[in-house]
This record gives sequence, C-alpha cells and structure tokens, in this order.
Amino acid sequence: MVLGPVMLRAMDSGSQLVMRDLRGQGLSHSLIGTDPVRKLAVYLPAGYGNAAVHYPVIYYLPNPLAKFDEDLYRGQVREVLDRAVATAEIDKVIFVAVDMATPLGCSWYVNSPVTGNWEDFMVREVVPYVDSNFRTLAGRESRGIAGDFMGGYGAIRFGMTHPEMFGTVYALHPVGTGSGIYTMYSRPDWKLLANIRSLDEVKDSPYGTIFTSIFQAGVPDVNRPPLYIDLQAHPVGDTVEIDSAVTERLRDNFLLETMIGKYADNLKSLRGLRFDWARNDGNQDHVYSNQAFTHKLNEFGIPHEAEEYNGVWGTGNWGTDGRVYTEVLPFFARHLVFEASSNRTQPN
Amino acid sequence: MVLGPVMLRAMDSGSQLVMRDLRGQGLSHSLIGTDPVRKLAVYLPAGYGNAAVHYPVIYYLPNPLAKFDEDLYRGQVREVLDRAVATAEIDKVIFVAVDMATPLGCSWYVNSPVTGNWEDFMVREVVPYVDSNFRTLAGRESRGIAGDFMGGYGAIRFGMTHPEMFGTVYALHPVGTGSGIYTMYSRPDWKLLANIRSLDEVKDSPYGTIFTSIFQAGVPDVNRPPLYIDLQAHPVGDTVEIDSAVTERLRDNFLLETMIGKYADNLKSLRGLRFDWARNDGNQDHVYSNQAFTHKLNEFGIPHEAEEYNGVWGTGNWGTDGRVYTEVLPFFARHLVFEASSNRTQPN
Amino acid sequence: MVLGPVMLRAMDSGSQLVMRDLRGQGLSHSLIGTDPVRKLAVYLPAGYGNAAVHYPVIYYLPNPLAKFDEDLYRGQVREVLDRAVATAEIDKVIFVAVDMATPLGCSWYVNSPVTGNWEDFMVREVVPYVDSNFRTLAGRESRGIAGDFMGGYGAIRFGMTHPEMFGTVYALHPVGTGSGIYTMYSRPDWKLLANIRSLDEVKDSPYGTIFTSIFQAGVPDVNRPPLYIDLQAHPVGDTVEIDSAVTERLRDNFLLETMIGKYADNLKSLRGLRFDWARNDGNQDHVYSNQAFTHKLNEFGIPHEAEEYNGVWGTGNWGTDGRVYTEVLPFFARHLVFEASSNRTQPN
Amino acid sequence: MVLGPVMLRAMDSGSQLVMRDLRGQGLSHSLIGTDPVRKLAVYLPAGYGNAAVHYPVIYYLPNPLAKFDEDLYRGQVREVLDRAVATAEIDKVIFVAVDMATPLGCSWYVNSPVTGNWEDFMVREVVPYVDSNFRTLAGRESRGIAGDFMGGYGAIRFGMTHPEMFGTVYALHPVGTGSGIYTMYSRPDWKLLANIRSLDEVKDSPYGTIFTSIFQAGVPDVNRPPLYIDLQAHPVGDTVEIDSAVTERLRDNFLLETMIGKYADNLKSLRGLRFDWARNDGNQDHVYSNQAFTHKLNEFGIPHEAEEYNGVWGTGNWGTDGRVYTEVLPFFARHLVFEASSNRTQPN
Repeated sequence: MVLGPVMLRAMDSGSQLVMRDLRGQGLSHSLIGTDPVRKLAVYLPAGYGNAAVHYPVIYYLPNPLAKFDEDLYRGQVREVLDRAVATAEIDKVIFVAVDMATPLGCSWYVNSPVTGNWEDFMVREVVPYVDSNFRTLAGRESRGIAGDFMGGYGAIRFGMTHPEMFGTVYALHPVGTGSGIYTMYSRPDWKLLANIRSLDEVKDSPYGTIFTSIFQAGVPDVNRPPLYIDLQAHPVGDTVEIDSAVTERLRDNFLLETMIGKYADNLKSLRGLRFDWARNDGNQDHVYSNQAFTHKLNEFGIPHEAEEYNGVWGTGNWGTDGRVYTEVLPFFARHLVFEASSNRTQPN
Repeated sequence: MVLGPVMLRAMDSGSQLVMRDLRGQGLSHSLIGTDPVRKLAVYLPAGYGNAAVHYPVIYYLPNPLAKFDEDLYRGQVREVLDRAVATAEIDKVIFVAVDMATPLGCSWYVNSPVTGNWEDFMVREVVPYVDSNFRTLAGRESRGIAGDFMGGYGAIRFGMTHPEMFGTVYALHPVGTGSGIYTMYSRPDWKLLANIRSLDEVKDSPYGTIFTSIFQAGVPDVNRPPLYIDLQAHPVGDTVEIDSAVTERLRDNFLLETMIGKYADNLKSLRGLRFDWARNDGNQDHVYSNQAFTHKLNEFGIPHEAEEYNGVWGTGNWGTDGRVYTEVLPFFARHLVFEASSNRTQPN
Repeated sequence: MVLGPVMLRAMDSGSQLVMRDLRGQGLSHSLIGTDPVRKLAVYLPAGYGNAAVHYPVIYYLPNPLAKFDEDLYRGQVREVLDRAVATAEIDKVIFVAVDMATPLGCSWYVNSPVTGNWEDFMVREVVPYVDSNFRTLAGRESRGIAGDFMGGYGAIRFGMTHPEMFGTVYALHPVGTGSGIYTMYSRPDWKLLANIRSLDEVKDSPYGTIFTSIFQAGVPDVNRPPLYIDLQAHPVGDTVEIDSAVTERLRDNFLLETMIGKYADNLKSLRGLRFDWARNDGNQDHVYSNQAFTHKLNEFGIPHEAEEYNGVWGTGNWGTDGRVYTEVLPFFARHLVFEASSNRTQPN
Repeated sequence: MVLGPVMLRAMDSGSQLVMRDLRGQGLSHSLIGTDPVRKLAVYLPAGYGNAAVHYPVIYYLPNPLAKFDEDLYRGQVREVLDRAVATAEIDKVIFVAVDMATPLGCSWYVNSPVTGNWEDFMVREVVPYVDSNFRTLAGRESRGIAGDFMGGYGAIRFGMTHPEMFGTVYALHPVGTGSGIYTMYSRPDWKLLANIRSLDEVKDSPYGTIFTSIFQAGVPDVNRPPLYIDLQAHPVGDTVEIDSAVTERLRDNFLLETMIGKYADNLKSLRGLRFDWARNDGNQDHVYSNQAFTHKLNEFGIPHEAEEYNGVWGTGNWGTDGRVYTEVLPFFARHLVFEASSNRTQPN
C-alpha cells in the first residue's frame, strides 16, 4: 500500500517531516478520474527517533481548493509545531495532513459511488496505516482531527460519524454546515449543467466545479454521465424550477446541520468539539450558517465551543500569531490524552 | 352539529357578525379536558342577506393565548372589514374566526392523541360546515387562511398540509417556525415536569403551560399521565441531560422549518403565501426563526413574501392603521378569486 | 430658466407625461463637468387640463446609476400611476422625477464645492419651479419625496434637512444610511487614487466612480485636483493606513445615521417616514446598515416604518405588483393632504 | 493616602494577595454618597518577596454589580494566576483589582460632577500608588487593563483616553459599547424618574439604579437633585416624549462607539486590544452592540480582536477552564513587555 516514504533532513529542532503515499482501495471505483494515490505529510516531534514514547495524533484536512503543499508542511507547519512544543502550548504530538482533494476540488469526505469512498479511506486505511507505521497512542482519547474550510467540514463530519476513532475535533472556518442568506441553487449555471457534454465544461463556469463537487457528494447518480449527479434545478425560460425532492436529498446528505439529530449522541461523546469562523468573510453565508449551526448544536445539548472572530478567512492560520498556534494546538492540548511520562510543563 | 346560531343586529353598514357553536367530533378523545364545542365568529358583508352572490372566505386563527373575544369580532374586526370594503382595499368577503384554544393554550393545529385532532376538525368539520351554511365560493382559489402569533403558525401549517383547501395564506408574526438563539429546553422547569402529579401544576411555572402544549402536540405519549408527553430533558443535579431522540422527534413534529422539504410542492402550489413579524419583539427568537424560515423557503424555490417591520408584536393588527387593514386584506384582495360580477373598483 | 417644455401625447387615461429642462444655478460651480441643465419628468393626472383642482406632488429621485430614462416615465411609470388612481390606491397626484446624476454617478444631494449645490438646487429651484408652473398644493403637508437606492438616500436626507418643504418621505432600499460589515476603505484602489492623473482614470477601477462620488460629497477638497477629495487611506506597502480624521469627517458628512441626532426633531416633524430594503441584496452591507438605521431612529423616538422584504433590490419597483404600486403610493395616500373636493373613494 | 495594608498569609505557591485601601481625592465631591475609600486587591507572584525583579501589572475592573469580593481574589483568582504562571500561560505578573462601584452600581469610569472623578482617580491616584508601592515595570508597554461587563467598558474606555498609561486592553463581555435592538429609553420608568423625591426611590424600579448610574455618568446635572440628571424622556399620557438633545448628549458621552472617531489614533497606538462576548447572553442588545462596535473599529482601521463565543456571560471567567485562564492571560502574555531576565519558557 505504501508506495515510498520520503524522509526529510533533520532540522535543528530535531523534528521531522515525513511524506508518504497511500493507495486508497476505497477510491478505485471513482468515475471522475480521482487519483487513488494520496499523500500524507507526517510531522514527527523532536526526539521521535531515539525514544520509545508513543504520541497522540492530530489529523489535519487542509482546504482542498489549494494544492497539497509539501513545502508548507516542511516549512511553516513544522516551525509552528516545533515552537508550540517549545513554548509548552502543547506536548509533543504527531501531526498528519491528508490530501483528500478530487479533480473538482473537494471529496466532502463521504462515500460516493461517483468520487470514491472517502469516509472509508480515512477510517479504514489512513488511520490504521499511521497507527501501524508510527508510534501513536492509538485510541480515540489521543486522536484528534482538525481541518480548514472544507477540511473543517470534514473534521466535524468525522466527529459525527466516527467518534469511536476521533475523540477531539477542531474545525477552522468550516463551510457546508448549513445554507445561508443566498440560496444554493442561485450559484450554478443550470443551463450549462442541463446540457453539459463533458466534465471539463463545468470548469468554465464560476461556481461550476465547487457545486458539482457538492452534488457528486450529496446527490450522486451513477447513471447520469458526465456529471453523475441529479439536478436540483431546471432552467425554464429565464428562470429556474427547483426540484423539491432533489433539494431535500441534497440538504440531508450534504449540510452538516441536517445530521445533528441523527449523530447528536456521537457528538456528545466527543472529548472536545470546537469550530471558529471569521466574521468578515466575503461570503456572509459562511457566517450565517455557522451561527445557525452552533444554535442547533445547543438545541441538542451538545457541548462545544464556537467562536466568531474579527477578520477574514484564510489569512491567519499559520505563523506564530495564527490560529493554529494560538487556538488549535492549545485546544488539543486540553483535550488529548498524552502518555503519563510526557509532561507539558517540562517540554524537554 | 350546530348548537345554535346567534344573529347579531344589523349595523349601519349592513354587514353582520354571526356566532356559531360547532361540536368537534375529532376533539372528543382529548385527554386534557378540551371542550369539543368550538366557537365560530362569522362576518357576512353588507348586502349578504338580499343577494345571491357567493363570496370568498378568509379563515382566521386568533392568538389562542388571548380569550376568544366575541366583542372584538362584533366591534373592531367588523369595522375594519366594513371599512376595507368601503375603501376598496378588498371586495366583499366572508371572514370566519375559529377558536382552537386548549386548556393549556394552543392546539398547534395538529392531530394529537392527547389534545384532539385539530387538523381534522378544521378540514373535515369547520370548512364543510361554513360551505354548507353560508354562500361561499367553495374552492381553494377563493379560500384563504390567516392567523396571528400561534394562529399564524396554524395558517402556515394548513397551507403546508392542505393546499387543496386553502389557496392563500397570511401569517401575522408566526411563532414556532423554527428554534432561535435560546434553546427550547432552557425554558421549562424540568424538575417540575419530571415529578409532576397533576396537569394543573404546570400553570405555576413561567413557561409551563406553553411548553406543555408544545410537547403535547409534538411528542405526545398517551401512556404517561398526567402530562401525556415524553420529556426532552431530565434533571441531573443542577443541570439537565437532553434526550437526543425526543429532541429530534419534537423538532420534526413541531417546527415548521423541518416540514418545508416534505411539503415544498404543496407550498409552491399556493396562490399566495405571506408572513410578517415585528423586528423589536421582546423575544428575539421569533425574529431569528422567521428570518431562518424565509431563507429555507427560498432554498426550495417557494415563492412567498416575508416582511420584517419596525415595531413590537401585538399592538398593531386591528384598527385602520393596523396590519390587517393595510397588509392582510390587500394581500387577499390580490390573491383570492372573487365572483365575476364582483368588481373591486366598483365596491357597491 | 426653463429651456423648453415637451408635451407628450395624451394617452387613453387622459394623464400626461411632461418633460422639462431646468438650468441649475447652484450647479454652475462644479469642478467635474456636471451638466447644469437637469431633466424633470412630470406626470399630470387625468383631467389635469380641464379642471381647476390643485394636486399634491410626489418628488422622485431615481437611482442615478441608471440613465434618466424618459421612456420609463412615459411608459411604465405613467401606467402604474394611472392604474393606482383608477383602483383608488391613491387620489390624483402630480409626480416629478428629477435627474440629479453626476458624471461619476451620484450627487448624494448635498451642497459640494466640487460637484455642485444639489441640496440648494432641489429646494430653491426645482420645487419653486414646479409650484410656479403646475397646479400644486404648495405646502409640506401635500408634498412628498421618494427615491430609489441612492435616490432613497436623497429622500431621507431631504426629510432630515428640509422637513418644512417635504412632509412625507419614502425611501426604497436606501444606501449610505450607515457603514456595514465590510469596511468602506476596503473597496477603493488606494494606490490608484493616490497617484491618479485624471478624473477619468477612476472609471477603470471596480469601485472607483462610486467611491469618488462619495468622497466628493463627503470629504471634498477644492485644492486637490483632479479628484478634489481628501484621501481616507494611504497605501503603505501591501496594506493601507487609515486617516482617522478624514474617516470621521467622511462619516459625519456622508452617513445618514450620523445625522440622526442633529436632525431628530426635523424627522419627528414629518407626517410620514418610511423606508424598506430587500433582505437578499447581494451587498449585505445595505441590509446591515438599514437595520442599524432603524434601530437608531428608534433610540431618538422618531416614528417611522422600516420594512425588510424577501427579495433582491431593483427587480420589483415598477409594474402593478411592484413596490411603488403596492407600498409607496398607498403610503403617500395615507399621509399626503389632498384637496377637500378630492375624494379617494370616488376617484372619478 | 494609604489607610492600611493587609498582608495575607503566604500560600504554598509562594504568591501573595495584598489588600489596600486608597482614599480617592477625586471622589470627594460626589453628591450621591460615594465612599471615597476604595479597595485594591493586589496579587504578587511567587518569589516577589525575595527578588529584585520588576513585574508588569494587569489592572482589573470587576463587574461593579457584584460586591468587591476579597475572598474571590484570595481564592480562585490567586489560584488561576498561580496556575497560569506554573503552566507558562504567562510569566509572573502583578494583578490589581480596583473597586470602582458607586452607591447605584457603576461609576462608568468617567469624571462626573455627580458621582466623582473616576477617570482621574484611576490615572492620577491608583496607578501612581501601585507604581510607588510595588516593584512594577512602570511603562505603558508593561501595563495592561482588563475588565468584566461594565468593567470591560471601563477597560476599553481607559484604552481610548489613556493609551499613554495602559498599553494593552482586554474587555470581557463589555456593555455600553453601543445601543442595541431595544431602545435605551424603553427601560426606565419615566413617570417615577419625573416625580422622584429621593435617590433611594430608584431602587424600587427594575432598571432604576442601572439607568440612573448611566445618566449620572452621561448627562449629569448638578442643579437637579435628587438624581442630578437630565431626563432623556418625559411621560406624556401613556407614552413618552424623547428629548432629542439629551439623547444625543447621552449617546455622545456614554456609548463607546460614539468616541471611536475622536480616540481612533489612541486606540491604534495600543499594543493589544481585545474584547469578547457571549453569543447567548439573555440580553441580545449586548451581542448586537458589540458586533456593531467591532465593525466601527474596523472602519477606522483600528487593529483589534473581537471574539463572540458560545455561552452566556458570567459563568465562565474564573477557574482553569475559564476565559481569564484560557484567553485573557495568554493575550497579555503576548502583548506585555516583561523584564529581560524573566523568561516564559523557564517559569521558575
């Protein structure tokens, strides 16, 4: 399964960033050309090589709209983790970034007959691989998941569906938690989608790729090439007609808020659940839907933190004044279980 | 079925206000002492007595927290309707106010094994009775329903479930469209509800009656006297534990927003759908939930009007600067079908 | 002053649409090439020609971003007014649309050393001209002002500064009532503005013209060609530095919310004040700022109506299901004083 | 000036909590019976007694609606500070809680001819006293101010008016930053205030004391006993008439948002500015006004953090999962300047 590890040079701190390629068996049936070989970027803390200690693991789902940036993990990410350990923001941990992007952008972390079984891939392949190949603390209490933007959606979704695996969840500015002020159907070009001849054509439309990825995750239909989706709306003259049944199915399968009731007890079983979002996001739907999401979590009595901060999304996650350093790592420090011998106030 | 009509004196305008009592067969199984005999207040326009014209009907569900006020219908309501006809805001109509209050306040217009089959009562008894006893235009295109506060909830709910009967809907400041900023479970006194010995005891608690009425409509349980409800929360020390399954069932049965998907095509079939709410309502949950409700209606492409106005609820519905006169009647004038011979621009 | 009337053909209804050109003396000092000759489109109701009746006047400030469209006034506007009179939505009125657009878009209806004295032009020239040339009821109680978008801003502003002239105000989706979620300074291209050589260059920038028009109204500076404005921000590397003093001056001169305290008693003296806005405006700043504006009016106890409706701005003002017909004209009907002999319930 | 120090027993950690009484010269002219002797609770970190180190100081303004609780400072506050130092959340600091409550609740931290010169007291007496009597780092870069609720108001206000003294500011759930959804004038009982005979009578009215304290700070009038305030509203029959001029003066003197323009450059000069608030506060005006406050700070380009969190105000500040531990102290750790020899990663 493992195609080849790439060991990076040891830096001064003694930490390492290891790259791995993993062939996803659950991804082989994809109809849209998904590459089944996925990259993992694995941060191993200083001293990993010459100790017998086991470490908690934080899985990280990056925003799939950006390329999976190995240099980021080797550089800024490693520096932030090194420094957080040095300043006792968190004890030594393993950090694993997983590439789950699809040709259209996002897998949305679901099992889809069109794009691949991403949920299975994560739960049955990625985590077992990491636990087998690195000295992890292999229980939910020591395993967390975080993500950014669409990756934040994934982190919450895995917390809903697999709390037996991920005990602590942090989502940075998640999207897809609910609908917003503007309707979802108002974004795609329905005339284009109704008459499309090839998957590539959606790339010419402003919201074409992102919404097709949403539909392939939420309303897949293997019998309808080339997009393999059911259409939520149909053009009628200058306007569109909304298909109520497809809309309901789309909402039920895609929006996290619709799943809260079903997975409420799972979410309550988490050791820690937190998400945040930027108040001044250019897309206020993200703000509106996250506000609605925290309200609905509260209706079910699900403990969580939900912070709206001053700023715009995407500028401030990394760096030592970024939210990973100031928020995410301290949150995992409070909720993950570390080995007894590991002591945060005595980092070295 | 009719226990006795009461004909009021003809006033100067020539209109009449007739009171009727109707025994609801669907209400006889109530476990909480519901009176099966319900009042109807029927406004008949000027000239009704000496013409062969048939008229559209507007059904009206008043706020059940106030007593069913016959004097209001004889007085201010009749004056507003008379004046609206005189000033051509609307053509001549029949207006029927129906008393659907229960001992705990509100029936929520559902079929409940605990409080009575209110939906059936309206659809199978009230409307047929009115069509049989008055010269109505007995089709959906000429039949509308309006309501105030909880009655507004009812108006929308009947529009969802019986669009074959009510073609046009107007809800004044509806409640129960969705949850809000504060959790529903934070209102009731769960220690009281968990140990209660008689239905009367809920009346001692600030939110006791209103929430018990909600639970009897949404999560009824005939095997659990004296409240006959499942409990959404259980006191545990100084806090409460939320039952996820009961919460989900409560939301699915009670909140109008959860029903949009199921009834979307019904709502689309309406000739007119409108609701409004006061921005400065002391309970901002009503504002928040109505905002969320209109957004979700839009997600399904359901045409409707949804206006948020400056003011507080309850002060301004009647009178000639009230919203019934300035908003509700003109809306029905635009959407109800009147007899061909009836002409709005020639009111007499 | 009058350069030449243009009498349109009488249509079936008997109403007329008259075009006039008025040379604004207060506009002659403009530094940016403002045309001092302004168009008026004057609707005269049916029967105007052969009666001695005097009529109330509704002034109308159209959105200046669209061209002053004579065909609109001759066509749809005249039809809507004709029909509203025919259906008794309002009694016969004179309606006067005034073109106050500038080369950069909007005059913002202020006296500016850069763009012209628009406030004076309206109050000292337009209104006296109309009162002198048409059979108006020339008092504030019979004179109203309405406007759309930026024109709505103007309508409210004239209600603030000249309630002795305009007794009733209706603003359709006004902008500029306050700042919003996104900062004003984040819109313009400050590098461009800092180094600009000619006024025309701002037209190449997405928000260039609109913001320059705002600055010429709010922070004019006759000594700084070619824009004649003080700069609120200065580029510093990749970011900008905000000038606090210019920002304060801009807000004080431009945003309507900052003027509420100063003009509160003027606003209270109005016979009617109303504005509305579309909830789903693509620019949520307009929604946010209008919500804040109504809240602040309430803080000063200023009676007004403020309705937020389902929809987007700009699609629905004209036509017989448009807001002018359903909202604006009925509002003026309730607040303007008509001649005693004129009777709304007997429109002809 | 110092009336008597009270040295508490040394606890295990080695830290101390010292109580001091300070007679405020600027408070002696109060007309409402303000006690000029104010308590200070001074936390001195472990090792203070036997070292020559100088420490940064965090001033803390508690919510004045609760009594100044010495036991809290001796107990939970000392424990939280001890632990934060032990876990390297922050280096050793001095922490000074100041009692600025008045007989009606809050001084609002202003110079008032009615309640005392609280601004002067803080700046000219408290801080110099602390710098003279304890080994402080006596510059703005090492001096911060925090506060809770009304105390949060004070912290921001001192940051506005005295940035030369306080270089870093953190406000926990501040109030009074702006007006909200409900009008300020709707709270007090204006009939009571118009006819009041003694200051004590306001205590019988639900909002009597809090609003009188606001008016004494914002619209004081030494010539109008017994409240010494100008009245914003006057009862007229069943309604009230709002005095526009008093309302404007009240807003200008009291609401922090009105002062942003004047003090924008002061705020920009701060090393750190942060406030937060609880989303589910029972008074949504606090949420609304803090949202508006951060938006307006952004309009002036004032760097700051502004976080809205899931929860209600007042339950979670102290304790090791409270916001002082998780948010406030780490924020000061990032922005205060400590002595070179002091090193956070080597706390002992």
